[in-house]
Amino acid sequence: MPLVVVGSVALDSVETPKDTREDILGGSAVYFSVAASYFAPVRLVGVVGDDWPAEHTQLLESRGINIEGLQIIEGGKTFRWRGRYMENMNDRETLDVQLNTLADFDPQLPEECRRSPFLFLANGSTTTQLKAIEQSTGATLTVADTMDLWINTEREQLEAMLKKIDGLVLNDSEAKLLTGEENLVLAGHKVREMGPRFVVVKKGEHGAMFFSQYETYVLPAFPTEQVVDPTGAGDSFAGGMMGYLAEQGNFEPTTLKKAMAYGILVASFTVEDFSLDRLINITREDLERRMEDYQQMLSF
Amino acid sequence: MPLVVVGSVALDSVETPKDTREDILGGSAVYFSVAASYFAPVRLVGVVGDDWPAEHTQLLESRGINIEGLQIIEGGKTFRWRGRYMENMNDRETLDVQLNTLADFDPQLPEECRRSPFLFLANGSTTTQLKAIEQSTGATLTVADTMDLWINTEREQLEAMLKKIDGLVLNDSEAKLLTGEENLVLAGHKVREMGPRFVVVKKGEHGAMFFSQYETYVLPAFPTEQVVDPTGAGDSFAGGMMGYLAEQGNFEPTTLKKAMAYGILVASFTVEDFSLDRLINITREDLERRMEDYQQMLSF
Repeated sequence: MPLVVVGSVALDSVETPKDTREDILGGSAVYFSVAASYFAPVRLVGVVGDDWPAEHTQLLESRGINIEGLQIIEGGKTFRWRGRYMENMNDRETLDVQLNTLADFDPQLPEECRRSPFLFLANGSTTTQLKAIEQSTGATLTVADTMDLWINTEREQLEAMLKKIDGLVLNDSEAKLLTGEENLVLAGHKVREMGPRFVVVKKGEHGAMFFSQYETYVLPAFPTEQVVDPTGAGDSFAGGMMGYLAEQGNFEPTTLKKAMAYGILVASFTVEDFSLDRLINITREDLERRMEDYQQMLSF
Repeated sequence: MPLVVVGSVALDSVETPKDTREDILGGSAVYFSVAASYFAPVRLVGVVGDDWPAEHTQLLESRGINIEGLQIIEGGKTFRWRGRYMENMNDRETLDVQLNTLADFDPQLPEECRRSPFLFLANGSTTTQLKAIEQSTGATLTVADTMDLWINTEREQLEAMLKKIDGLVLNDSEAKLLTGEENLVLAGHKVREMGPRFVVVKKGEHGAMFFSQYETYVLPAFPTEQVVDPTGAGDSFAGGMMGYLAEQGNFEPTTLKKAMAYGILVASFTVEDFSLDRLINITREDLERRMEDYQQMLSF
């Protein structure tokens, strides 16, 4: 089934202890789209400036991603983010943010997007996410991501949004920030009680937790020694998860758990190189092989 | 098969954000023994002073733990530790340590202990651990724990010990400290290359990782909202793991993985109350039920 993602499209500059890359393809909706494209037809809604390189458009289209909803603002500049990872490759510092065209992003969902049954609101302002929800009259499953910035600055809108969505994806520190609860199991359920039917708490190198009224579980990350650039891991996780749900066309508990596992595995490929360099060079068969290893790892 | 543990026996004072306990039963060998006692006959080797309460002896004996190797030093005092847990219940601060009789602990393994095929060197000085290894002529599987203190102060002895043991159990920050490697997968294998055939890296609320020449895997912790006192979780993990290996009488790869899982589950009970209050009140059936839930959680 079709899957729509609304979120940021970016040119990232990434510094790691070993290497640096300037103005590479990034953004929450981009990582999400490419990850999801291994499973289902994806439509990307976002905004860029006219400095947006044509090669990035080609890359997205080569993955079958529909970009009818990608606005290109004449005379505008694309959102830029610069960050530096610490030696542990988990902690990072944001060095510079230039919102540019993203500052006034007013998502306009093409008709086909509005009718899409699966909708993901990738990281972006809650106000923008709410606008996209209003337009998505055909959505049967709406899942959103959020981050500390919006928890701190748009809390009221976020609380309103939590009552309109089916699922929320956020990381561990954000779940604690949103609820004031230090125990992650309690925090996950507290977020769920704020509205969504399910909550996914991402724990980076430690995997992800799932919370619904009837279920609490955790799946570990796939252990990898090859961590080159963690940027986009969380968005890739969401893309793999939502992509699998869209492929299966349902969001039953058993489908959701397998979707979580696919999200973890797609993210494990993303971190193996800068930008999408690793993710675009895998096949569905690579994912299936890693899934076999992962299931083997978790059986005893 | 019989299992011997050499390690600390303590009276702990524990402060958590919600509650405080004074002079409660603790120590690495105690948590280990009680955890392992659900699986195999355990012999404890340690030292206490004559302030050691008789009720603690009774508790250990009620679990079938042989304490022939527990030295009671007349006129001496039992090792005491005081610590405070932070709001997140993971980070802790050591407020006071009184080594007392543990300072001069010279382990004397009774004949039965020397012949035991399974030996665990719980947390204690590397020098003490080496003395126990020398006496354990019948050991076919020797596994040790260590900690930052010994990595920093007895590195030479520790490196010598790593060449004499089959397995090492340590936590994530200690694996990084020992190897200077921030990536846990690389760190785990680097420790393994220092001698032991397998290495287990404990990650607290995030579970544990296993490393051998042919295997790298991670198992998540059992998610619990009931974290009252994390003291002894790592020692209980080791006790559950070694106890299951001793019960099965082998340390094949499939047995080791299931042993890791039992370790995780025993530890998940330990943290549910202060000291051994929860752990001594479960049955093997409680463990088996949680094992079923855990395996169910990890299957998709």
